[in-house]
Amino acid sequence: MDDKDNNNMTEYIQIKPYKKDATYSYTLGAFPTYELILSKPELVYKVLVSSSYTDMDSLSLLCNKYHIPIETNNKLINRLSNKENCYVAGVFNKYTCKLSKDKPHIVLVNPSNMGNLGTIIRTIVGFGIYDIAIILPGADIYNPKTVRASMGALFKLNFQLFDSFDEYRMQYPHHDIFTFMLNGENTLNIKDCPKSKLFSLVFGNEATGLDDSFLNVGESIMIPQSPDVDSLNLTIAVGVGTYVFVNHNN
Amino acid sequence: MDDKDNNNMTEYIQIKPYKKDATYSYTLGAFPTYELILSKPELVYKVLVSSSYTDMDSLSLLCNKYHIPIETNNKLINRLSNKENCYVAGVFNKYTCKLSKDKPHIVLVNPSNMGNLGTIIRTIVGFGIYDIAIILPGADIYNPKTVRASMGALFKLNFQLFDSFDEYRMQYPHHDIFTFMLNGENTLNIKDCPKSKLFSLVFGNEATGLDDSFLNVGESIMIPQSPDVDSLNLTIAVGVGTYVFVNHNN
Repeated sequence: MDDKDNNNMTEYIQIKPYKKDATYSYTLGAFPTYELILSKPELVYKVLVSSSYTDMDSLSLLCNKYHIPIETNNKLINRLSNKENCYVAGVFNKYTCKLSKDKPHIVLVNPSNMGNLGTIIRTIVGFGIYDIAIILPGADIYNPKTVRASMGALFKLNFQLFDSFDEYRMQYPHHDIFTFMLNGENTLNIKDCPKSKLFSLVFGNEATGLDDSFLNVGESIMIPQSPDVDSLNLTIAVGVGTYVFVNHNN
Repeated sequence: MDDKDNNNMTEYIQIKPYKKDATYSYTLGAFPTYELILSKPELVYKVLVSSSYTDMDSLSLLCNKYHIPIETNNKLINRLSNKENCYVAGVFNKYTCKLSKDKPHIVLVNPSNMGNLGTIIRTIVGFGIYDIAIILPGADIYNPKTVRASMGALFKLNFQLFDSFDEYRMQYPHHDIFTFMLNGENTLNIKDCPKSKLFSLVFGNEATGLDDSFLNVGESIMIPQSPDVDSLNLTIAVGVGTYVFVNHNN
């Protein structure tokens, strides 16, 4: 094995249906694949296309620009996408990030659903938040289901995984912490949303929320809701909380 | 066939996996089944339980109170739920409603996804809106997937289906109309959300939004978003729009 082979080791990986411990993942669909290439071209290992994909010209142009190989492989695309209608997939090397110290954060404690996680990423990027912390255990942010639900917004933000909320807090001690809880002490209201120059909005697991220890790590907040529902969907709580905080503090 | 048989005709329907043209649908899971019984006991035809359901006592008590038969039938529950972990199902007769003339409405034009429709129902009930109009074609509001995503909130509100937006408007001409569009003329802002005593918030299809004809039926509104996403998820747009309007106009 000479030096060249060594440097290009990743060119010889065999692409298989996603596993959590793999070193790569992939985008499914043309839209998130474009977002991947435009945001993180250096991470793209290969683009797979189906022979029935109809817009090869613009995809080729973009891949050529970044020296990304394209492979036509119907069988592999079908395997990766579980035979959903998928014509393009982008294989990328997993990567890690650090959060910005001086920008607002969203913190998800033990999110369990990959679709929710992806939708939350898409939503907060839509509202101008580009930093998300995940407290483990939690849904796999690299899983193609998460990537797909994010519509490629995953590639637009910084994410960082932590083993505990305390570990997050040690690394980012200067943010004002707001914990969203059904038994939060303060009611979120558009007329008197808290003022903060640097905030972290913290949300719990879909089924269990945040436990009572989170009543004391900052200011706890309840989104008012009628007695006719058990709770709001997590993605809605994050969407409303983020929209109101961003809008009020800009 | 004597009179008694005639009156109890529905007792002899054979329950099958859901079809759109069936006269009945069902809740899957204990939580939405309880919501069904508590909200619309007169519509419940039968409750099905799996032999491994562990909380029979309270379910029996409730069903007895409303004279609702309980049937233990593992095979049927498995068939209805596609073998997901489901221990309780409530079979109910489909019903129709009229919207309140003097309460705010949410209007969905051609919603396509049953999960989204159910989540939207759960969300607006959570924010205190109890009237939803669906402009057809659209996702089936009675489908068990919609019912499940609503977590039973479907039984807490009035819904009404219309063949066109004009038909809706003819029946409810007094509401101030606000159409949510990516090219809306006014930006939604928590500091100067429109004032209205009686509003309808109108949202388009997941993929296509509202067409430009909706720019002129009322006040068009854009939820501000960063250039880094294509659009917000429909459920998030409805959640944020509803929260801000309700909060501002209460």
